[in-house]
Amino acid sequence: MSRPADEFDFIARHFRALAGPGALGLADDAAVFDPPPGRSVVVCADALVSGVHFLPGDPADTVAAKLLRVNLSDLAAMGADPFGYLLTVSVPPDLPPDWFTGFSAGLAADQDCYDVRLLGGDTTATAGPLVLSLTMLGHVAPGRALRRNGAHAGDSVWVTGTIGDGTLGLACLQGELDDSSGYLVDRYRLPQPRLGLPLAGIAEAAIDVSDGLVQDLGHLCRESGVAARIEAAAVPASAAARAAGPSWLQRRLTGGDDYELLLSVPAGREAALRRAAADAGIAVTRIGGMEAGEGVTVLDEAGQAMAIRRPGWSHF
Amino acid sequence: MSRPADEFDFIARHFRALAGPGALGLADDAAVFDPPPGRSVVVCADALVSGVHFLPGDPADTVAAKLLRVNLSDLAAMGADPFGYLLTVSVPPDLPPDWFTGFSAGLAADQDCYDVRLLGGDTTATAGPLVLSLTMLGHVAPGRALRRNGAHAGDSVWVTGTIGDGTLGLACLQGELDDSSGYLVDRYRLPQPRLGLPLAGIAEAAIDVSDGLVQDLGHLCRESGVAARIEAAAVPASAAARAAGPSWLQRRLTGGDDYELLLSVPAGREAALRRAAADAGIAVTRIGGMEAGEGVTVLDEAGQAMAIRRPGWSHF
Repeated sequence: MSRPADEFDFIARHFRALAGPGALGLADDAAVFDPPPGRSVVVCADALVSGVHFLPGDPADTVAAKLLRVNLSDLAAMGADPFGYLLTVSVPPDLPPDWFTGFSAGLAADQDCYDVRLLGGDTTATAGPLVLSLTMLGHVAPGRALRRNGAHAGDSVWVTGTIGDGTLGLACLQGELDDSSGYLVDRYRLPQPRLGLPLAGIAEAAIDVSDGLVQDLGHLCRESGVAARIEAAAVPASAAARAAGPSWLQRRLTGGDDYELLLSVPAGREAALRRAAADAGIAVTRIGGMEAGEGVTVLDEAGQAMAIRRPGWSHF
Repeated sequence: MSRPADEFDFIARHFRALAGPGALGLADDAAVFDPPPGRSVVVCADALVSGVHFLPGDPADTVAAKLLRVNLSDLAAMGADPFGYLLTVSVPPDLPPDWFTGFSAGLAADQDCYDVRLLGGDTTATAGPLVLSLTMLGHVAPGRALRRNGAHAGDSVWVTGTIGDGTLGLACLQGELDDSSGYLVDRYRLPQPRLGLPLAGIAEAAIDVSDGLVQDLGHLCRESGVAARIEAAAVPASAAARAAGPSWLQRRLTGGDDYELLLSVPAGREAALRRAAADAGIAVTRIGGMEAGEGVTVLDEAGQAMAIRRPGWSHF
């Protein structure tokens, strides 16, 4: 793996076809691009590590898709539109040589799906597990980026899609839960970034649910200086998640990998949210409200505060 | 290391003070910024892996500085001005808890030196060696980014600074070479990105010398469709590198970690380059020229083509 031509060949073989305008064919020291006129640039970075964020046996194309999508989900939470991305890969010596063939195919499919292109990056060796770091660039109308700090007491709290499928999918892969349909594993491997929901002027604050509903709602509360009260029974569950039974409720509320949006919506804008969501084909569900104070309270079906054993996932 | 608050506390302790305008206090899903009016955005990403790009015992503040500077060097090679950066860190369990105190201090010092600020990023665990990935954002006048593909036969070939100190510094750290002054080790650990040299209208093509002079000159030739002929004796060496003796010549020409600029300059612009370099306080040296054909020829003092055993370093 130390012949000088290898790195160049590796990039040419797996990544050059993914390069978009501004990437300069991945042949230069940096990419150059112009954001659309009158738009602010939005940028985020998330890394996936083998054995931490995905399992070593996960298909390479779904790992690629997840890497793109977790970053697209961050842009969706800011109300931004994606443009392109940079990728750094740190590759262990024992990875099968054709692993990146599948990885590249997964990127190619999602590039078309989400209209983004590769802009640049870096390829390095590592003695340890595969590390994939992606920086996503997008754009937003100036001053219209959705923040975590905009929620107010009296807002209602909403989520897109269903909550808990990702963490139950991981439980299936780890042999703790059975899901013959494959639905939950699919949700773990292929999150759906909720781009395309025009939230400006509707939501006051947003975050994507990546590390567990209760923990991420807690982040939004802390940044906004409010408390949240949600009803466990109102948190939307897929049919597969419901079939897992009530013993999985805590994990559904606190597990990671949902990549749904959590929104704080002022009174009077709920109908606008429902219309926008219907137009975008994205389900939205009201799960509670914001109030004065701090922290997150989850009510059970008897209206009692649930004891949350661990509010979410820390990657560190 | 798995308490949910750890990641949040880690970011607050080590990184929040580094955040600049647009980073939103590192509290949101993404950063938002506006490039200066009328400028194109330039973006690059380079990762450093412990045991590959730095030694596990290297001081944390110099690792931080090197991570920033190798990316700043890429912007310098494009003729761009830096703005800010995103950082993803993948941290092994055995790293001493205070390692990031020194790392953060190194970033802070260089942020002031190069006028860049932290915009965002991600913190993850890994079972393997420390992986640090940085994405640098900058800006350039539209259409004025320096490319690798602009060289022509008849251009002269120039380098900034001195060549080979970085790889000789690594040899010192590995016990292969003695350098009591510490100059070479310092050059390995703390490259000097050659920002501030106004190359637009002077150089036709540029690359930063990161993987070895001969190999990087080869990249520039290949992208431009030309050949290069350089004289080994003309390649500038520091006093410490000269003191190592002639047996290190091959390594100086082909080792990595110089982070100097390699420039292709058309006839008639040499004086402009010398003036610009003098104004910026950066040494520039003519080492050869471009001609029709392909590949890189290195002439020895007798005017004979040297056999280059390995043109440069591949990280992969």
